[in-house]
Amino acid sequence: MHTDIKIVLVNTTHSGNIGGVARAMKNMGLADLVLVGPKSFPSAEASARAAGADDILATATVVDSLQQAIAGCQLVFATSARERHIPWPIMDPREMAAAISVAGKTADNSSVAIVFGREDRGLTNEELHLCQHHVCIPSVANFSSLNIAAAVQVIAYEIRMASVSDITDQAPQWGTSWDAPLAEQHELELMFEHFESTMVKTGFLDPDNPRQFMTRLRRLIMRALPDKIEVNILRGMLTSITKYIASEKK
Amino acid sequence: MHTDIKIVLVNTTHSGNIGGVARAMKNMGLADLVLVGPKSFPSAEASARAAGADDILATATVVDSLQQAIAGCQLVFATSARERHIPWPIMDPREMAAAISVAGKTADNSSVAIVFGREDRGLTNEELHLCQHHVCIPSVANFSSLNIAAAVQVIAYEIRMASVSDITDQAPQWGTSWDAPLAEQHELELMFEHFESTMVKTGFLDPDNPRQFMTRLRRLIMRALPDKIEVNILRGMLTSITKYIASEKK
Repeated sequence: MHTDIKIVLVNTTHSGNIGGVARAMKNMGLADLVLVGPKSFPSAEASARAAGADDILATATVVDSLQQAIAGCQLVFATSARERHIPWPIMDPREMAAAISVAGKTADNSSVAIVFGREDRGLTNEELHLCQHHVCIPSVANFSSLNIAAAVQVIAYEIRMASVSDITDQAPQWGTSWDAPLAEQHELELMFEHFESTMVKTGFLDPDNPRQFMTRLRRLIMRALPDKIEVNILRGMLTSITKYIASEKK
Repeated sequence: MHTDIKIVLVNTTHSGNIGGVARAMKNMGLADLVLVGPKSFPSAEASARAAGADDILATATVVDSLQQAIAGCQLVFATSARERHIPWPIMDPREMAAAISVAGKTADNSSVAIVFGREDRGLTNEELHLCQHHVCIPSVANFSSLNIAAAVQVIAYEIRMASVSDITDQAPQWGTSWDAPLAEQHELELMFEHFESTMVKTGFLDPDNPRQFMTRLRRLIMRALPDKIEVNILRGMLTSITKYIASEKK
């Protein structure tokens, strides 16, 4: 069992910070640094701040886009200080480390990326939506922005703590102020019936030989604990298919 | 009940580091900085690295000796990377934060100092022996020395976590032997594109007014961390819809 963990920095402006990140990573046993469009790299400032972590800088990868940086990763975490308009599953760094640890135990190889945004304005919404989880370091509200090397230090420290102490008892929390209540059992069941009848109509599902389709679909969707708006969206999607079929049949 | 927590820096050489420490403290809600014989203070470098934590610098106390800095404190922790000749009680930062938290709950007022040594050689044995507990950040053995601002960040983060966290949760119970590897980033992106194009065809999604459909769908499915089989099933479902539409149009 092996876990690859990449630290991904998006559009870092201050070269010294890249060196500070490299030092923080090496202190905590991380080695894989990916730079998305850094303003200047390599640089003397980065090497100076790395203070002996030059090997991390020497093997760092420079890419053009976040998509390239996280291609092939199975778990992608975005660090974010700000609250966003649409809530996304949010973890603190300890929960993130536990999730990485759990993933590492349930797969032969797991590939993880942790993404850090620009010094002045973090990540865009589009970049955040490429990531499965948002990780928020619990800073004070009126002075919330950590130096990027300090943020990497905290994240890397939690990963190190999880690896040396095997602490996996922190469950991910999905934020206390989600924007819709969770769907109820019967809403889920009606939705699954709707999926089933629609997929029989399209010919995807053979009622005489359903195989595992409904089971796997159910497991997938239930694992996400869908809220009521999400269930309505999925049902609206199904209704649009049925209506299309009905209108074509006239 | 009130806990005073001082961060004490002994003979700091690089002025910028004092600013980095101030920023890390303010991010995590700490305010009381004590400098024992700093090489240069105040300084422009410190203010620049403080990045808005100037109030911490402005109210910092400068003293001549560690004894003065910790006079009156009830709990005194020394940070130390090195193993010492004479073993001393050693805690990791989380244990330290728990000890501070317990002390704060069992006394009306508690006064705590956490002591950080010189950038190049830490604290002397005499200084270490003035402190009740030694705190060791679990860095890797062959690259153990953290930047002092990074070390303060980790310590302050643990204190903050102890004050804000409600640690009662269980690890995610998603099975110990999942039956398929997790989907990779590009597989997920292709699936979302497939969803989008299909829903435009059925008329559910108006490309000129997409509203939040794709964002919410993405949030739902990514939250579940889909595996490769699940992605194939969803894409098969989408293909069946497209084929149905194509066959009806003939």
